[in-house]
Amino acid sequence: MPRPNERSPSALRELTFLRGFTRPAPGSVLVKMGRTTVLCTCCVEPKVPDFLVGKGKGWLTAEYGMLPGSTNTRKPRDKAGKVDGRSVEIQRLIGRSLRAVVDLDKLGERTLWIDCDVLEADGGTRTASITGAFVAAVDAVNSIRALLTVPVSEVLTDSVAAVSVGLVDGEERLDLEYVEDRDADVDMNLVMTGSGKIIEVQGSGEEATFSRKQLDALVDLGEAGIRTITAEQKKVLGNTWPF
Amino acid sequence: MPRPNERSPSALRELTFLRGFTRPAPGSVLVKMGRTTVLCTCCVEPKVPDFLVGKGKGWLTAEYGMLPGSTNTRKPRDKAGKVDGRSVEIQRLIGRSLRAVVDLDKLGERTLWIDCDVLEADGGTRTASITGAFVAAVDAVNSIRALLTVPVSEVLTDSVAAVSVGLVDGEERLDLEYVEDRDADVDMNLVMTGSGKIIEVQGSGEEATFSRKQLDALVDLGEAGIRTITAEQKKVLGNTWPF
Amino acid sequence: MPRPNERSPSALRELTFLRGFTRPAPGSVLVKMGRTTVLCTCCVEPKVPDFLVGKGKGWLTAEYGMLPGSTNTRKPRDKAGKVDGRSVEIQRLIGRSLRAVVDLDKLGERTLWIDCDVLEADGGTRTASITGAFVAAVDAVNSIRALLTVPVSEVLTDSVAAVSVGLVDGEERLDLEYVEDRDADVDMNLVMTGSGKIIEVQGSGEEATFSRKQLDALVDLGEAGIRTITAEQKKVLGNTWPF
Amino acid sequence: MPRPNERSPSALRELTFLRGFTRPAPGSVLVKMGRTTVLCTCCVEPKVPDFLVGKGKGWLTAEYGMLPGSTNTRKPRDKAGKVDGRSVEIQRLIGRSLRAVVDLDKLGERTLWIDCDVLEADGGTRTASITGAFVAAVDAVNSIRALLTVPVSEVLTDSVAAVSVGLVDGEERLDLEYVEDRDADVDMNLVMTGSGKIIEVQGSGEEATFSRKQLDALVDLGEAGIRTITAEQKKVLGNTWPF
Amino acid sequence: MPRPNERSPSALRELTFLRGFTRPAPGSVLVKMGRTTVLCTCCVEPKVPDFLVGKGKGWLTAEYGMLPGSTNTRKPRDKAGKVDGRSVEIQRLIGRSLRAVVDLDKLGERTLWIDCDVLEADGGTRTASITGAFVAAVDAVNSIRALLTVPVSEVLTDSVAAVSVGLVDGEERLDLEYVEDRDADVDMNLVMTGSGKIIEVQGSGEEATFSRKQLDALVDLGEAGIRTITAEQKKVLGNTWPF
Amino acid sequence: MPRPNERSPSALRELTFLRGFTRPAPGSVLVKMGRTTVLCTCCVEPKVPDFLVGKGKGWLTAEYGMLPGSTNTRKPRDKAGKVDGRSVEIQRLIGRSLRAVVDLDKLGERTLWIDCDVLEADGGTRTASITGAFVAAVDAVNSIRALLTVPVSEVLTDSVAAVSVGLVDGEERLDLEYVEDRDADVDMNLVMTGSGKIIEVQGSGEEATFSRKQLDALVDLGEAGIRTITAEQKKVLGNTWPF
Repeated sequence: MPRPNERSPSALRELTFLRGFTRPAPGSVLVKMGRTTVLCTCCVEPKVPDFLVGKGKGWLTAEYGMLPGSTNTRKPRDKAGKVDGRSVEIQRLIGRSLRAVVDLDKLGERTLWIDCDVLEADGGTRTASITGAFVAAVDAVNSIRALLTVPVSEVLTDSVAAVSVGLVDGEERLDLEYVEDRDADVDMNLVMTGSGKIIEVQGSGEEATFSRKQLDALVDLGEAGIRTITAEQKKVLGNTWPF
Repeated sequence: MPRPNERSPSALRELTFLRGFTRPAPGSVLVKMGRTTVLCTCCVEPKVPDFLVGKGKGWLTAEYGMLPGSTNTRKPRDKAGKVDGRSVEIQRLIGRSLRAVVDLDKLGERTLWIDCDVLEADGGTRTASITGAFVAAVDAVNSIRALLTVPVSEVLTDSVAAVSVGLVDGEERLDLEYVEDRDADVDMNLVMTGSGKIIEVQGSGEEATFSRKQLDALVDLGEAGIRTITAEQKKVLGNTWPF
Repeated sequence: MPRPNERSPSALRELTFLRGFTRPAPGSVLVKMGRTTVLCTCCVEPKVPDFLVGKGKGWLTAEYGMLPGSTNTRKPRDKAGKVDGRSVEIQRLIGRSLRAVVDLDKLGERTLWIDCDVLEADGGTRTASITGAFVAAVDAVNSIRALLTVPVSEVLTDSVAAVSVGLVDGEERLDLEYVEDRDADVDMNLVMTGSGKIIEVQGSGEEATFSRKQLDALVDLGEAGIRTITAEQKKVLGNTWPF
Repeated sequence: MPRPNERSPSALRELTFLRGFTRPAPGSVLVKMGRTTVLCTCCVEPKVPDFLVGKGKGWLTAEYGMLPGSTNTRKPRDKAGKVDGRSVEIQRLIGRSLRAVVDLDKLGERTLWIDCDVLEADGGTRTASITGAFVAAVDAVNSIRALLTVPVSEVLTDSVAAVSVGLVDGEERLDLEYVEDRDADVDMNLVMTGSGKIIEVQGSGEEATFSRKQLDALVDLGEAGIRTITAEQKKVLGNTWPF
Repeated sequence: MPRPNERSPSALRELTFLRGFTRPAPGSVLVKMGRTTVLCTCCVEPKVPDFLVGKGKGWLTAEYGMLPGSTNTRKPRDKAGKVDGRSVEIQRLIGRSLRAVVDLDKLGERTLWIDCDVLEADGGTRTASITGAFVAAVDAVNSIRALLTVPVSEVLTDSVAAVSVGLVDGEERLDLEYVEDRDADVDMNLVMTGSGKIIEVQGSGEEATFSRKQLDALVDLGEAGIRTITAEQKKVLGNTWPF
Repeated sequence: MPRPNERSPSALRELTFLRGFTRPAPGSVLVKMGRTTVLCTCCVEPKVPDFLVGKGKGWLTAEYGMLPGSTNTRKPRDKAGKVDGRSVEIQRLIGRSLRAVVDLDKLGERTLWIDCDVLEADGGTRTASITGAFVAAVDAVNSIRALLTVPVSEVLTDSVAAVSVGLVDGEERLDLEYVEDRDADVDMNLVMTGSGKIIEVQGSGEEATFSRKQLDALVDLGEAGIRTITAEQKKVLGNTWPF
């Protein structure tokens, strides 16, 4: 199975960011990774969850959803009383990934609310969400920099980006799109910082297995992809890049 | 209280439609009414709800939601087990409005799924949803015209558009934006067809009342607005306008 | 389709009120509009919702339900986790209608709880609920008049009543019963005060439309009906009528 | 603590039945036991739950609810996602009690739906519900007697009635009203047939205990009360009494 | 139908207690009654429900569940939004039974949390739960005796145990196992204290009835069984038996 | 921070399996990893989910729960309408891991239901669950081997085991217990087959990051641990080990 559009196994799809896509949230970024389209907003709430009240520390929480029209077969909305296990997993991942680069002690008693809503799903929605959410978070933190006691670069300690890699027909490929993801033997998501540290690695063979050597090759491929994505984040943020 | 941007009481905000905004749904329209931004998609499902099976008749259902970042204060998502009464009312209104111009007998055993998701809310989200949903429905029905036994103009029997009107400081105004809506004494939504028939009129004075004369003036104002909106729908649909 | 019982198009069904139908709630009215039977209770709670605490202002909230045996086909109770969109719409309407005639600032930090439970449904349950709820509210406010700082007639600023009108076979009719409502092309609910001001007008053509002229005729018919209903409310309340 | 109204320990409160209180359900009885008021309806549905389909056997199910205005402090409605353990217990008890006197094999593939809704609660709502539900069930089964293959007296094999007894200040009392029930050391509900057989005995000492001798005395008292209640049921049903 | 394993009608199954089965809860008892196996834990929480705060009084609450693998046909877990009426009834019974022997005034502002989780169900799970829960409660109260202002024997005022009895083929039998319980005409649960007082008697004929004489015989049989169970509780608790 | 009990960084805790711990489920294994105690049951249901009906293929699904008394602070049960995101993640992981070694085509139209219920939690509950679930699955598949068309070793294609590794104070450690897990900078779970293939690797730095070199060292450590665990599984299964 060759890649769609003759893409090379180690090539990313086209990546674009539209900052300020909507107005109410101080961070609002429409990120597109090929056809995958996610609206990432970041709001700042001047309070923290109960378990943190009075500790002088902030919090970051993330939620993820897919619009019903985002998939080829319409995806029903979550009904009251039902739960989508996949969405729960993804929003926990996005939250952990962003918190790894936020110094919550320096944020003050505030909550950053990250919302990633998928307008079109063509594979890699969770990694595009993380990548876009970081850009939205930079815009949101910048919007309150007058209220902070430290520079933005001390609240955000590093950048964060994510990418998927996978084994398709025995071949290691970067940034799977939907038709590849559906048939992949192994699907891995890698979240890393701009400085090259790993935040999260999740590799899974659904009804399949993989060798240690393949694990190593997939991580190599993902690391290279994240370097490119980080460069794109830096470009779109221009002089608001904090580091 | 003067109108923002020196708008005249009988003027609409700028209205734009982006057709084909996303790819998976056959109808996908980003409608903007001033800053109010709604993604309206229309999917076609080749089956009907249980109560219609075997009757050779179609169905149309609508759902409405607001993204968390669409409002100035972040709007929490509906939690499992909780319900947003306002959303329920709105999606019932959108469904009734669209069904009034769809000949369900001629649609065949199919369901049109209308989804209206608000990306930015600045007043009039329910009326913008109806206005945009009609454009998405035209694109969706056109996408299956090879499967229909009648022309599109027999499935869709008329166009539909909606607008809000209201009493602010005793003045009748067309197409209220959020800061006006918040302070309005009376808020009315009018849904009409392109041929000038009324589908729905809902006027409500929250902790206020209005006279019969004011009711008549508000309906007059709304009728004029809907004529303009219908003309915009016709323009953006070009030669796919069914009538 | 002639009217049942040779009723004229502009005639109401027989309207009766039983005040003090049950004892625990200070306002408890069994209202019958033809066969439609609703128990309206009004309780007074000496506190307000969180968003009003400390503002010296009161609140009024309404809930609506149908007993399972109230309809020809037994109506299942709402299950945990399911929601009845129609009930939500109706209870929001009842609440708005009553709040329009209550001066919440003069009520003090109290909540009026209106409960409308349908024992038998034969069309017009939401309008009978509003009509009966006003009578129950008068009794409830009277029961606390020793605690108020102003006369009852300043807490309740006007009376409120409601009626349905509709288009059946092209004929405008007042106060539809179930067999008419089911077949009506247009169904409209009108809520007005005793002094002739409009609180709410909701007209809807389910899979049908109506002309501006028909709208005007329906409102005329409803206004006349509400004058009669107001007179009945005044009669049953006797010297406790506040105005 | 003497009994209210100088009632003797072995006396019942006044018991009345209003048959045909509402029209849609074929059995509809407003039962009053002192101030306790319950609307008992019995509907007949021409199908059975999945686990009985095709077995030629019927079913009976019961539901119980309290209207918000039925208690001195307004009782909130069950919210989606919350459950009232007490209601669940009571409706299971009502169902078991009625099924004990219905020959489900002779009912045919039908479900009897019993609904007991409390309009006013002054103690003994569950026992009044059972007592009234039997009268409603007789009316409902009579309404379908033309469809049955056996006489009503073979579908309903016996009558059923219930009463509460309790220990208050060490005294055995029959048919407790609310102020007694609240302070009782032991509360017992007894359900029996008209022919003197026991269907259910539930005696409970909340934060208290009782002796075997007291148990025996309470059962004696309840048996006598049920004989009187059965006579009242027979009187109100007149020549429709099946036995 | 003879009893399994030639058990005599008045014989209990083998009863064993494993104290300290798990470590985190201060009371943790695996109770086995024949094959019926329940893990009863008792935790102490240093606070009370809202309705008791500031009254210097404690509380005891109980929950009951069945593991999916505990029954011959796998029992689905409770889903969000669904409720198991039987579990609700049982946990209310366990709570009432234990509270009857706890002097909440002397417990101080603490809550005893009883959890009874069935690992294997072979009849009598609710009575085994009560019997085991008492042993766990003794261990839990002993674990905080240094914090109490009175001896353990004043907090726990008596022991409590429970047993089922029933009518099978017209024979009164003690401690029914599943195959008997399934076919019993009458099922009764008896909860008593070690000093011979009754806490709860619940006898029910599902689609059957029983005579007063049978009621008396069943209570006799249960009383004898509870005396034996109490002796076993005393033996396993050894010198921590409080009385 | 030294390891509790002077355990070496590369040592596992004591691992025991009790097969046949309960009777109703054909696979029932109490697995203990140090103090962590999980009851793993495997039931066989003779049908498959709707999406697989008629495909001649089987299914495996897993659920995970923690008993309230399993943690030092009592863990409240999931309430109706609430969801525990962590449980959802874990049960999805258990299901994926087991499915990787089950040939669903050869299982026939059956569902294997894995239930892992934690009786005591001291770190590593999800990995102990997977390890124990495999043993339960072997027993369950053996129980139906007369119904299979192929040997057990073709239904179960490999063994599966799991272990946690982590970075604590910069040291790579195997099989973290709770006090280590709580303070770990990086927590990784590794699921592998008996033949040395990887099924899942999930490494996460909550509010921390790790280097590529540390990733490699952690995977090395986990691989060694899984070899030991596999040997223990083989020992306890004795001649029912399928390979």
